[in-house]
Amino acid sequence: MIDRLMEKIVKTGNPTVVGLDPTLSMMPDFIRDEAIEKYGKTPEAAGHMLVAFNKAIIDKIYDLIPAVKLQIAMYEMYGLPGIKAYMETIKYARDLELLVIGDIKRGDIASTAEAYSAHIGGVEIEDAFTDVWQEDAVTLNPYMGYDGIEPFIKVCTRKDRGIFILVKTSNPSGAELQDLISGGEPIYRHTAKLVSNWGLHAMGKGRYSKVGAVVGATFSEQAEELRKCMPHTFFLVPGYGAQGGRAQDLTGLADQDGLGFIVNSSRGIIAAHVSDARFDKRQGGSVNKDFAEAARHAALSMRADLRTVFGSYHD
Amino acid sequence: MIDRLMEKIVKTGNPTVVGLDPTLSMMPDFIRDEAIEKYGKTPEAAGHMLVAFNKAIIDKIYDLIPAVKLQIAMYEMYGLPGIKAYMETIKYARDLELLVIGDIKRGDIASTAEAYSAHIGGVEIEDAFTDVWQEDAVTLNPYMGYDGIEPFIKVCTRKDRGIFILVKTSNPSGAELQDLISGGEPIYRHTAKLVSNWGLHAMGKGRYSKVGAVVGATFSEQAEELRKCMPHTFFLVPGYGAQGGRAQDLTGLADQDGLGFIVNSSRGIIAAHVSDARFDKRQGGSVNKDFAEAARHAALSMRADLRTVFGSYHD
Repeated sequence: MIDRLMEKIVKTGNPTVVGLDPTLSMMPDFIRDEAIEKYGKTPEAAGHMLVAFNKAIIDKIYDLIPAVKLQIAMYEMYGLPGIKAYMETIKYARDLELLVIGDIKRGDIASTAEAYSAHIGGVEIEDAFTDVWQEDAVTLNPYMGYDGIEPFIKVCTRKDRGIFILVKTSNPSGAELQDLISGGEPIYRHTAKLVSNWGLHAMGKGRYSKVGAVVGATFSEQAEELRKCMPHTFFLVPGYGAQGGRAQDLTGLADQDGLGFIVNSSRGIIAAHVSDARFDKRQGGSVNKDFAEAARHAALSMRADLRTVFGSYHD
Repeated sequence: MIDRLMEKIVKTGNPTVVGLDPTLSMMPDFIRDEAIEKYGKTPEAAGHMLVAFNKAIIDKIYDLIPAVKLQIAMYEMYGLPGIKAYMETIKYARDLELLVIGDIKRGDIASTAEAYSAHIGGVEIEDAFTDVWQEDAVTLNPYMGYDGIEPFIKVCTRKDRGIFILVKTSNPSGAELQDLISGGEPIYRHTAKLVSNWGLHAMGKGRYSKVGAVVGATFSEQAEELRKCMPHTFFLVPGYGAQGGRAQDLTGLADQDGLGFIVNSSRGIIAAHVSDARFDKRQGGSVNKDFAEAARHAALSMRADLRTVFGSYHD
């Protein structure tokens, strides 16, 4: 997974992952109206909206980007129809050769983590295997330590799959535990070292491990320090755009080739039609059909922004 | 939720929560065979096995215990049919007036946590409300700090719902981050203080908050210390039985009335037929029909064990 991801980043010249985290408030009227007419104001309607919205966005951006990330909470909140929409979106994205990261942030004791590892490893019922979830990679939470991570690493050693473990998150309260100082270093640095060591169990073919880290984009000062103490750890970087991160804040995360990370943007791309006046419905008409076009424009702007700092990898 | 839970503990004289975390290896042959005959070796078959197994166990123990806890991973691993089994089990348990704790251990940034809070708060599609998941309480992960917890606390303030936040887990690797020392105290003590303070936002009618803590049963020495620094925090205690915890290790967690905690046992109860020779299928016959009876016996033994230390609350 990590090698395919690196290849696709170089091929597209774009270390962007688009976060498919839609909310109902982002829905164009024609998608909302059609679903509610057919299914009422139900979770089924919500599920159908999410799928229709995602497919339209994916159709317009799949050629520009290497990967999408789905925040499972935005689907899980609608129960079964939501989870169904999550799975359908994954299949649709994979069919267009996008890599898919499931942002699930699970973390538990060993036997439970083993069960959760079905997300990337599938399940066996008697002797029959089913790849139920089909994410290429998932995010995980480190609070319970290695035994909750190991089952996923085992999947990574035998399959082309990956994980990204939370190290330093981009949200305001992330500091409450992550920035406490222990032995002269913040907790997130301890997490960083653990994750870096765990990663040695599942190296890709190149410089990077299949065990990556989630490192927020809103704190440029720590980026370089983390890159140094995690030399073979690929970074998944949330917080760009809507959460305040900018391309120049990311330079410290890159290796000497300008690689080694992928930057997520969710609302900044998929809700571009909401904030962009050109697509404002009060201006009349075009918003409903053009929301996916707005997402493409936003993805192109983000790519251009990242290229000003990292180049296109083709030079 | 916390007040109902306290009432039910006193009424049943039993601070036990049974973990409905079934695996296919626990399934009696007649349940397995019927499901596979009907659905093949598929996730659908797994889902049907889980529901049949859970219902039979619940029927035999619902009068003994105040609550059940479902580890969602054991269901999520089978995708949609698994999640459907999780939801069906919740409804079945609630209809028999058991409180239901969803062991989901979610934790994320504010907007995502808001979505996850549908587990206890339901969702609104336009102006129509649906209680999609229906857990009475869920477990949460504190690594990302307060903004990932707040949406759940808001639900607790307006509804009869609860949460339990990981403080000190019972798994061997839990210590890797939780026991690091910061400012003279382990990280789990810092988490404990945060959780205790957050709990003040959503107090129940009595001594305890709707914001509880997960505190492992395998480390009796820290129990008393945590009870002191979290005087209004109700404890959900995993690790009893299969993970090595015993009733006498729990005394420190109790308040002066012997209350303030609930102890989870999963495999020790629902897989009693697997380890108990009386139900061993090699002894011939009885295993298949009597697995739920074995669970009842195990639940009675656990209640007796807890009563030797805490009494029955009726004295």
